Amino acid sequence: MSEKPAGRTILASGIAKGFIEEVENGVKALGRSPKLVGFLANEDPAAQMYADWTGKTSESLGFTYELRVVKKDDLEEAIIEANEDDAIDGIMVYFPVFGNRQDQYLQQVVSLEKDVEGLNHKYIQNMYHNVRFLDAEESQKSILPCTPLAVVKILEYLGAYNNLLPYGNRLYGKQVVVVNRSEIVGRPLAALLANDGATVFSVDLDGIQRFTRGEGLKLKRHQVVDVDSTLEEVSKNADVIVTGVPSANYKFPKEFVKDGAIVVNFSSEKNFNPDVKERASLYVPMIGKVTIAMLLRNLLRLASNRSSKK
Amino acid sequence: MSEKPAGRTILASGIAKGFIEEVENGVKALGRSPKLVGFLANEDPAAQMYADWTGKTSESLGFTYELRVVKKDDLEEAIIEANEDDAIDGIMVYFPVFGNRQDQYLQQVVSLEKDVEGLNHKYIQNMYHNVRFLDAEESQKSILPCTPLAVVKILEYLGAYNNLLPYGNRLYGKQVVVVNRSEIVGRPLAALLANDGATVFSVDLDGIQRFTRGEGLKLKRHQVVDVDSTLEEVSKNADVIVTGVPSANYKFPKEFVKDGAIVVNFSSEKNFNPDVKERASLYVPMIGKVTIAMLLRNLLRLASNRSSKK
Repeated sequence: MSEKPAGRTILASGIAKGFIEEVENGVKALGRSPKLVGFLANEDPAAQMYADWTGKTSESLGFTYELRVVKKDDLEEAIIEANEDDAIDGIMVYFPVFGNRQDQYLQQVVSLEKDVEGLNHKYIQNMYHNVRFLDAEESQKSILPCTPLAVVKILEYLGAYNNLLPYGNRLYGKQVVVVNRSEIVGRPLAALLANDGATVFSVDLDGIQRFTRGEGLKLKRHQVVDVDSTLEEVSKNADVIVTGVPSANYKFPKEFVKDGAIVVNFSSEKNFNPDVKERASLYVPMIGKVTIAMLLRNLLRLASNRSSKK
Repeated sequence: MSEKPAGRTILASGIAKGFIEEVENGVKALGRSPKLVGFLANEDPAAQMYADWTGKTSESLGFTYELRVVKKDDLEEAIIEANEDDAIDGIMVYFPVFGNRQDQYLQQVVSLEKDVEGLNHKYIQNMYHNVRFLDAEESQKSILPCTPLAVVKILEYLGAYNNLLPYGNRLYGKQVVVVNRSEIVGRPLAALLANDGATVFSVDLDGIQRFTRGEGLKLKRHQVVDVDSTLEEVSKNADVIVTGVPSANYKFPKEFVKDGAIVVNFSSEKNFNPDVKERASLYVPMIGKVTIAMLLRNLLRLASNRSSKK
């Protein structure tokens, strides 16, 4: 009996490298240092760490970063001030703040023009409908939400996208499982991958939905149906498995992974045991560094949008 | 010992009457029948009942109503079609559909110009900031969310607002308790009442916040602070107690109600026992008929906005 070859772990830092360079060059080409303001209104040490890390990365690439620590009840006013401040190109808020739907309200207070995370309703709706620009003249690019975009870029890097296929259909024939259907990451990600031609099984506690590219002439968007299959059934044929379960106790069952599959975890918890590499060919345990590269890529895009508007 | 006088029950139907007439006359003055489309995408009998009831009421007042029953995965596309249909003045969706944050996404798909429920982020943000118009020319009126607006109108009807005080300060000196701090009703309501001069204690499971009218020159909005008091402490001086706890088991403790207080329940469950009238002077057990009058008032306003835009 021959031993199965072990899969490889691919680190986000390596994947991020190319994007980091692209962003750094973009800042040089722009000829000024776009300014990002982060708002911290909780006492979560993880948020503080993430803030420090955003600051360090963005400063190192030529951006200007300012962290504003505010009381939660002053946050809305602080965001509005930043919206109106011409010296600021991008705004991000370290959530959770209130930990309930008021956080979604606050996210929408960030102006469309400065929303580096791509979470404004307009951006999300454009993403679902494959709309790439904000204006009819196509001078203002729409922004994609950072984390789903990071996963897409990672899958491109790992070769899940086939470059011989036409753009917009490069996941054709691929089956993908996404375990998480949050509004922030899981559902947008399933839609993005389906828009690129994949058959995506979106899994959460309520059940499994299948996302495929719609044929509707009008909206050019994915179609969604509920399916009766189990996680095991949809996983055993999956070329790609992406997880984002925010629980230390959750582990994706290794035995559901097809030999040679690509597995990516975007949760801050480790949703796979390292022995998943006995099955998976490529394993990305964390994606944070790519996500931050996408954040700065969005910031650069917003700065360019502003330039082209003037 | 003299027996305490029993308080009165005031029914929403009586309160709604004046608004219903106002709306009916408004339709006549407009000279055409504004069209409301309701979307039903769940199998909740309560939603079906509410839809039937909206239909009946709106038709009886001169509006045109159409119920569109769609599958939940087709709802977004159906809303977009209605957004683009010039024959439609207003759109409402009977939630819950998915029962999670996707419902908030769908709510925001309804276009600003047709959002009769006043739940678009722009309307909510305008409400929090006391902004009454959508445009600098003040030709397009902003819409208030139906249920909080209904409670305000009820409190005006019940005399909690003092008409001798200047407009915008007619709750001055009043202390109000609102039990519910949802993004849809409780928090906007607390803000509306604080913007009108009241001191509002907003209560939910996480604690109690005090809303007062802010003094900020810039935003003219309410201010919020966390307070350490108990429900009993904030209630015993409350002139008005408003509840909206969606649980059959919850009852507001009668002994917390000040003699002569006004009590209003906007939950579909009965948050007060009828014996609350041993303490309360006026008791409004349900508000649905006023809410629907506000919905149609909003529809009329949207129809007028459209007319003044042309």
